[in-house]
Amino acid sequence: MRIGMVGLGRMGGNMAERLRRGGHEVIGYDRDPRVSDVGSLAELVDRLQPPRTVWVMVPSGEPTRAVVAELAELLSPGDLVVDGGNSHYADDRGHAERLGAKGIGFVDVGVSGGVWGLHQGYALMVGGTEEDVRRLMPIFETLKPEGEDGFVHAGGHGAGHFAKMVHNGIEYGMMQALAEGWELLEASDLVTDVAGCFRSWRSGTVIRSWLLDLLVRALEEDEELSRLRGYAEDSGEGRWAVQAAVEHAVPLPVITAALYARFASRQPDSPAMKVVAALRNQFGGHAVTSAEGGRAKGADSPGADVAPPIETEK
Amino acid sequence: MRIGMVGLGRMGGNMAERLRRGGHEVIGYDRDPRVSDVGSLAELVDRLQPPRTVWVMVPSGEPTRAVVAELAELLSPGDLVVDGGNSHYADDRGHAERLGAKGIGFVDVGVSGGVWGLHQGYALMVGGTEEDVRRLMPIFETLKPEGEDGFVHAGGHGAGHFAKMVHNGIEYGMMQALAEGWELLEASDLVTDVAGCFRSWRSGTVIRSWLLDLLVRALEEDEELSRLRGYAEDSGEGRWAVQAAVEHAVPLPVITAALYARFASRQPDSPAMKVVAALRNQFGGHAVTSAEGGRAKGADSPGADVAPPIETEK
Amino acid sequence: MRIGMVGLGRMGGNMAERLRRGGHEVIGYDRDPRVSDVGSLAELVDRLQPPRTVWVMVPSGEPTRAVVAELAELLSPGDLVVDGGNSHYADDRGHAERLGAKGIGFVDVGVSGGVWGLHQGYALMVGGTEEDVRRLMPIFETLKPEGEDGFVHAGGHGAGHFAKMVHNGIEYGMMQALAEGWELLEASDLVTDVAGCFRSWRSGTVIRSWLLDLLVRALEEDEELSRLRGYAEDSGEGRWAVQAAVEHAVPLPVITAALYARFASRQPDSPAMKVVAALRNQFGGHAVTSAEGGRAKGADSPGADVAPPIETEK
Amino acid sequence: MRIGMVGLGRMGGNMAERLRRGGHEVIGYDRDPRVSDVGSLAELVDRLQPPRTVWVMVPSGEPTRAVVAELAELLSPGDLVVDGGNSHYADDRGHAERLGAKGIGFVDVGVSGGVWGLHQGYALMVGGTEEDVRRLMPIFETLKPEGEDGFVHAGGHGAGHFAKMVHNGIEYGMMQALAEGWELLEASDLVTDVAGCFRSWRSGTVIRSWLLDLLVRALEEDEELSRLRGYAEDSGEGRWAVQAAVEHAVPLPVITAALYARFASRQPDSPAMKVVAALRNQFGGHAVTSAEGGRAKGADSPGADVAPPIETEK
Repeated sequence: MRIGMVGLGRMGGNMAERLRRGGHEVIGYDRDPRVSDVGSLAELVDRLQPPRTVWVMVPSGEPTRAVVAELAELLSPGDLVVDGGNSHYADDRGHAERLGAKGIGFVDVGVSGGVWGLHQGYALMVGGTEEDVRRLMPIFETLKPEGEDGFVHAGGHGAGHFAKMVHNGIEYGMMQALAEGWELLEASDLVTDVAGCFRSWRSGTVIRSWLLDLLVRALEEDEELSRLRGYAEDSGEGRWAVQAAVEHAVPLPVITAALYARFASRQPDSPAMKVVAALRNQFGGHAVTSAEGGRAKGADSPGADVAPPIETEK
Repeated sequence: MRIGMVGLGRMGGNMAERLRRGGHEVIGYDRDPRVSDVGSLAELVDRLQPPRTVWVMVPSGEPTRAVVAELAELLSPGDLVVDGGNSHYADDRGHAERLGAKGIGFVDVGVSGGVWGLHQGYALMVGGTEEDVRRLMPIFETLKPEGEDGFVHAGGHGAGHFAKMVHNGIEYGMMQALAEGWELLEASDLVTDVAGCFRSWRSGTVIRSWLLDLLVRALEEDEELSRLRGYAEDSGEGRWAVQAAVEHAVPLPVITAALYARFASRQPDSPAMKVVAALRNQFGGHAVTSAEGGRAKGADSPGADVAPPIETEK
Repeated sequence: MRIGMVGLGRMGGNMAERLRRGGHEVIGYDRDPRVSDVGSLAELVDRLQPPRTVWVMVPSGEPTRAVVAELAELLSPGDLVVDGGNSHYADDRGHAERLGAKGIGFVDVGVSGGVWGLHQGYALMVGGTEEDVRRLMPIFETLKPEGEDGFVHAGGHGAGHFAKMVHNGIEYGMMQALAEGWELLEASDLVTDVAGCFRSWRSGTVIRSWLLDLLVRALEEDEELSRLRGYAEDSGEGRWAVQAAVEHAVPLPVITAALYARFASRQPDSPAMKVVAALRNQFGGHAVTSAEGGRAKGADSPGADVAPPIETEK
Repeated sequence: MRIGMVGLGRMGGNMAERLRRGGHEVIGYDRDPRVSDVGSLAELVDRLQPPRTVWVMVPSGEPTRAVVAELAELLSPGDLVVDGGNSHYADDRGHAERLGAKGIGFVDVGVSGGVWGLHQGYALMVGGTEEDVRRLMPIFETLKPEGEDGFVHAGGHGAGHFAKMVHNGIEYGMMQALAEGWELLEASDLVTDVAGCFRSWRSGTVIRSWLLDLLVRALEEDEELSRLRGYAEDSGEGRWAVQAAVEHAVPLPVITAALYARFASRQPDSPAMKVVAALRNQFGGHAVTSAEGGRAKGADSPGADVAPPIETEK
């Protein structure tokens, strides 16, 4: 079928490509004229025949909201807007209402697959009405991995992004579990072939997984990961998962711990641990006995030979 | 080759079966005479020719230590003992020393695979000397998944069980991540096809994994998991992983949270939360005002209409 | 000075009483006519002379927003509204703007003290302009503990409730720390006088605190806490603290763990742990071998004597 | 009474001083001859009359074990050894047995108080038999805070150190709760007087405590804690508390999180987070597209204007 694609970055561009290879006609719009097929959103809309389908693949938050608002003005009753970006699920209801008021349909799609999706297909988590989702099935069929799972109509508006958010939360937890395992193996003298352990785990174990495969790949390129810093961004969806859990009174200890580990990885120094250090200095006597200045550096003073139980926790 | 197998329970029995199918001659010993090929460990040893190989597959701790001690008496220099059970890595050094003093070799093997191993092969994490491990390669080749990964010589004595322990720690974290995702999806009204989400995730996503496959299987049998209680044992290796991490000053937040979730799942009531409840009663005034007995049940009293902010946290 | 108090529940009623004892004239309004001095908010406003001061002490969220909205209609330029309830800090900006548009001042106050506040005084965390806060100082001086700390002008609009929210987050963490300590002492056979330990800790230790005093009180009434269930509500502020932390990318492991422990305490069964149980059944072979139905109850089967390492985590 | 004190470091020296001020006769031994009253342990024993009391106040582990072993040789039946250091509770049983075999009594004492103890008194948690503890009461009465709590006979051998270990675990949790609160306040723009909040909390709040007092002191010396690094040692007892909890299947989320925060504070870079970074690079396409080298530094590439949702978590 014919579809408009707004946003031709790494994700949108590859998805447009996969759709074209699958026989669909894609008209792409991007602010970057070098990759755009049309000069404006209005021109994109003109180039599509009603009932039109426009897939929005731009950054979540303001950019997505701006494109949807503009499309609400440009499109006609019976048209259909798809938000395939990483939007917060709460935005979807607003978009559905704003577009619905004009007779325009709305479907939210959580998309997973990254750079691998072009060839392997994208996993799609979809929220919207039965009717709107049915109309989009030819598109979904082409985008998803061929002959496999990778598609779910998860529920009404927002369900697609909610499901994607949870997927990413699970992903955070799994990544951190692998990461902690690696750190523990590295910390021990017993295991001398850490990379070999991970490689071996790809078959026959309980933890075999795509993330494990990726980690083995990474370790093959850089066995000690010495070219990397222990620094990790978070994409927003992990945060939303924790906030949604708190709202629903759902305990999420593992996913939250994984998120916090990322937060901490980006702090050059931990403010909280300054407080702990300050408290230790206080009851360790630093404030009283200036001669013990070394304590501020976390070093326990050696003291006399047999004796001095340095009781920093007293 | 010919090998003695001590312990013919679910794991040992299946492994003996896989070895036989692979052309090895296995003489099995179990205290249960219905499954045992011989009447005693001594008879088992007699039936093997030097240099003998005896694979021990009995519960960790005392049972394994008892079998190893008995084998130390029965075997001869040049023989080889394999501990394939779930032993703590610290036990391995003791076994290696005790056996080594008599010229008997020792290899520790962490085995993963469960009931699936008979057909799919077992993942093997091996600790020991180059020479001893080389001697066992025909056995390992048969036990491991054919033509795939699933084998690593991780290091010296103890490295096999240490690697297996870390594997299980990672497994705890991954399982809990999936579990938390399920709970969050179930808690939300937005997603109406929770099982469908998990099913769809098997292709194209970052979290595709064997554990996800198993969860989909479980959800197909019982979509709401209504036949299960939220109760989970732990096998010891998760505990050892946390204790090893603490010893090495390695932070393990995700794996530890997963372990603690299991501990908590087995408590009919949380002692710690009684203390929290008691404290809330104290500053909420329960101790002072006996008429507010309802507070002990955790219910905030409604109070007058516009007004009474029941400030239980004040 | 003369002040109107809206909401005469446990907190508002006691605060009105403390203010009267301190020489202020308090006109109280509550929907419950038995405790109210006036029949309506409008009458309350009438009874005060400009520039008026109205302290709102009703439940946070809708009730507070409704009262503030009504006061915005009833009051005059130069009047002043105080929200002393447990409002979310984000509500304060809206209230300040709405009232400010009519020339009415607004101050948010986080109040701590519970039932103890009437006699011991209330801790006050205040947000608002210098001028508005100065006007209220006679009220604050009477409410706070006499001759001690217990008052801070924390910042502009919202700062008072933000500070109170953080206070409550710290409180959650401290309570949980004490609770975990109690559980660990109870779990060990070594310590035979657990209540005595807590009692002794009130002097000379690092953890001496008001919460410890309260716990000792609670243990004196019920040494084993056998009359309580391990069930704890949360008042909202702990949740907001975690959500604010996530928004600011601040790792809050201890406060979050304390919050999650409360969530979990209210679940009759853990949905997440059903998933863990389901997964254990899957790789433990339950799904395959129906004869092992007992596994679903979390019990490891004993197996033959020497042998069967039941490898539920394999 | 007359007592020998082994180890005259900061703790032992101050305790000896407090005992002398209380009218006891203390003969001190330290390897440092400048502070020692005698030249050897043997001489110390000679200087005491049977039945002797020797208080050991040296670092836990090997040093304490060495002193106890030497005392077992030097002392006579009816004598009494006290271990007041930070020993692991499991060591106490061994000491009690070794000494008991010679008719020598043993009492373990967990001591809290740090540099403040000399003047304020020490909190004492005691393990041992009724009879041995009774004999030591004059010493305990002098060491503990006068006229207050601060003493408990917690149980048999090991109970004193176990109780002290739990005390320190609670302390870790409380410190971390305060620390997280400070970090959250600092991260927000709303609160402009963070130190003032902590100061105000010393009265009327739920979190008033000695640790809060110490933190206020620290903030008065250095309001932004800018002279400190966020680095904190742990003294061993926090680790033991977590290990004991794991052994008893007691979930300890808050205390463990506090311990892990200390571990992490000492890592110049997080090995685990290198794995997370490596995985993000893998599915973000770094391995495939070398031009995106910047991703390794954690920066999301900006992409075209409307478009490119950089889906690092895809």
